[in-house]
Amino acid sequence: MAKLQAGYLFPEIARRRNAHLLKYPDAKVISLGIGDTTEPIPEVITSAMAKRSHALSTLEGYNGYGAEQGEKPVRALISKTFYSDLGIGEEDIFVSDGAKCDITRLQLVFGSNVSMAVQDPSYPAYVDSSVILGQTGLYQKDVEKYGNIEYIRCTPENGFFPDLSKVSRTDIIFFCSPNNPTGSSATREQLTQLVEFAKMNGSIIVYDSAYAMYISDDNPKSIFEIPGAKEVAIETSSFSKYAGFTGVRLGWTVVPKELLFSDGFPVAKDFNRIVSTCFNGASNIAQAGGLACLSPEGLEAMRGVIGFYKENTSIIMDTFKSLGYNVYGGKNAPYVWVSFPGRSSWDVFAEMLEKTHVVTTPGSGFGPGGEGFIRVSAFGHRENVLEACRRFKQLYK
Amino acid sequence: MAKLQAGYLFPEIARRRNAHLLKYPDAKVISLGIGDTTEPIPEVITSAMAKRSHALSTLEGYNGYGAEQGEKPVRALISKTFYSDLGIGEEDIFVSDGAKCDITRLQLVFGSNVSMAVQDPSYPAYVDSSVILGQTGLYQKDVEKYGNIEYIRCTPENGFFPDLSKVSRTDIIFFCSPNNPTGSSATREQLTQLVEFAKMNGSIIVYDSAYAMYISDDNPKSIFEIPGAKEVAIETSSFSKYAGFTGVRLGWTVVPKELLFSDGFPVAKDFNRIVSTCFNGASNIAQAGGLACLSPEGLEAMRGVIGFYKENTSIIMDTFKSLGYNVYGGKNAPYVWVSFPGRSSWDVFAEMLEKTHVVTTPGSGFGPGGEGFIRVSAFGHRENVLEACRRFKQLYK
Repeated sequence: MAKLQAGYLFPEIARRRNAHLLKYPDAKVISLGIGDTTEPIPEVITSAMAKRSHALSTLEGYNGYGAEQGEKPVRALISKTFYSDLGIGEEDIFVSDGAKCDITRLQLVFGSNVSMAVQDPSYPAYVDSSVILGQTGLYQKDVEKYGNIEYIRCTPENGFFPDLSKVSRTDIIFFCSPNNPTGSSATREQLTQLVEFAKMNGSIIVYDSAYAMYISDDNPKSIFEIPGAKEVAIETSSFSKYAGFTGVRLGWTVVPKELLFSDGFPVAKDFNRIVSTCFNGASNIAQAGGLACLSPEGLEAMRGVIGFYKENTSIIMDTFKSLGYNVYGGKNAPYVWVSFPGRSSWDVFAEMLEKTHVVTTPGSGFGPGGEGFIRVSAFGHRENVLEACRRFKQLYK
Repeated sequence: MAKLQAGYLFPEIARRRNAHLLKYPDAKVISLGIGDTTEPIPEVITSAMAKRSHALSTLEGYNGYGAEQGEKPVRALISKTFYSDLGIGEEDIFVSDGAKCDITRLQLVFGSNVSMAVQDPSYPAYVDSSVILGQTGLYQKDVEKYGNIEYIRCTPENGFFPDLSKVSRTDIIFFCSPNNPTGSSATREQLTQLVEFAKMNGSIIVYDSAYAMYISDDNPKSIFEIPGAKEVAIETSSFSKYAGFTGVRLGWTVVPKELLFSDGFPVAKDFNRIVSTCFNGASNIAQAGGLACLSPEGLEAMRGVIGFYKENTSIIMDTFKSLGYNVYGGKNAPYVWVSFPGRSSWDVFAEMLEKTHVVTTPGSGFGPGGEGFIRVSAFGHRENVLEACRRFKQLYK
């Protein structure tokens, strides 16, 4: 653990935000930083959770330990909603308390003697959990990277997708699409290349699709849309950004039965053992919420929430475009990735906080490939997003 | 992971139960096996969770990501309820989705290069998570132990507490009191010895107090009642067996700021980093339930639930005593530990299941020191406990 540099990114940003509040106690600070949902959960979903809560005080409605893998109806409905025609059955779905937690449980399956690749920039939990498990070498200050991790540079220059012929083979490849933080989503052709690359190298892809429902175009919403992916990929996802479940905690991970270790042992069996030993299932009340999310009314309500955040995204993108900045992401994700060429991300972050009282996230917090960028999250009340954009316009006009 | 023997104990028991149901589809199977709560959650608690659920669909009541360490009022109330006068502040409390999950997070803090001691018999998650983290040697079939784990034999002969002068030094000592499975709870004098032993050896005690509210006598309910414990111990606990939260998922772990690694670094800082990186906090609805549990009405209601299960315990103890068996535990725990001298636990388990359709837990599932014992759980509806005892009386009369 001593190898880890500073704190986990988001608590560090919260710390700076709090310091700013101490300095300017009267400032109206707007947070477009940690990607935290702000809009209420649709009532069709909260009612279902309230109903389940009440039922737990009755003899008929009470239940104790659930299956660690999740309740059968929830697994079945996730399979039907997101993976129908993709050959992913309910037995391949493991319901969890969120994608971040499942990433660590997956790392426990892999153990310490594996090599890892991550997109650079990428969501910090991949690298940090990898360091904690002892998979990496020391942090190298000059290049801002850990040893023994393959950083796959994803920048505007390569359309946020690497030339895979130049990427070294690793045992595990973390790949997030739509990407956090760049907001880019991979095309069918790119994902086909990725699956072939993994197959050729005997690698396992951990595909983070937590923002898949934000995709507006024809890009795949699941890695399992790619033929052959079931033999090389795990997919992890979450209700957090669809239904505002960041506090309720519910997600899932797909480990297809077709995915085998090189000795032929099913990865799902090991994951099942980890889930049984290190976890006790997601809260039954949250699972009742998940069922409601996937009802016809729930799906419509979630699309409403997602549509709202996507309008925010457009407002933010238009703002920075009008100011002459190069802006990426946004279309298929709730994140806008703004380029500040030649500047340090933390400097821009500090400047924005100091002069506009808006909290964003410095791109370099996601890896050295994020240097010179700022991630602006579209999770916010409309009036706050509009106000933040007004302030940006004033500062950068 | 290949070192692990068979599956995690409780899914294995569920498997055998299901096989029995297939064989005897009409049998009325009674489960006194996995220690799963059966009584409804008191309404004062479920109402609070329903209220929080509904609030999440309002602008004022919505919240997204909570602090990974738990909501401040929950931490404060746990501190006040269980640790007042013990010098444990709210900042020492980490709210979680349960003790089992926190055990793995603690193991992540310790890493793979540590040595471990466990009570034998003990709750299997300690050993299994230790194996998964790579702390142990191979499983040694002849002695039914993993290499590089110190098994502290706890049997009727030593009053379920070892002569510590014969116990080897380890970095970590898992200690559960009231004990699962033996039901014994350690005295103040014994815990004082344990704390001194840890201090002398520079060991960290992970004290599992998930059944502390079942203690009827003067034995300590927290390790922190022992002077000096804050410098050597972590305590993990749970609402599962107090409020029937096995499915709702809520627990906590105390890592006192006074607890330091040998290099002087606070253990709490590392645990905080693990919690921030590998976890996103317990469900906010479950936390609302936790607050209600600790209100005056909630505490009274929980004591009612605990009292009910303790009556079950008495019924089970009286049954086996009347049949001439030596029976342990029970007084301070919801588990009865029945001795079947000279017999294999799994044989007795199978005999009970086959002839009485009652599921119990074989003692040897908790370690070689449990061989020859059966754990009977007091978690059950009253009529089922009475019926199970009638069947036991018929079989063993």
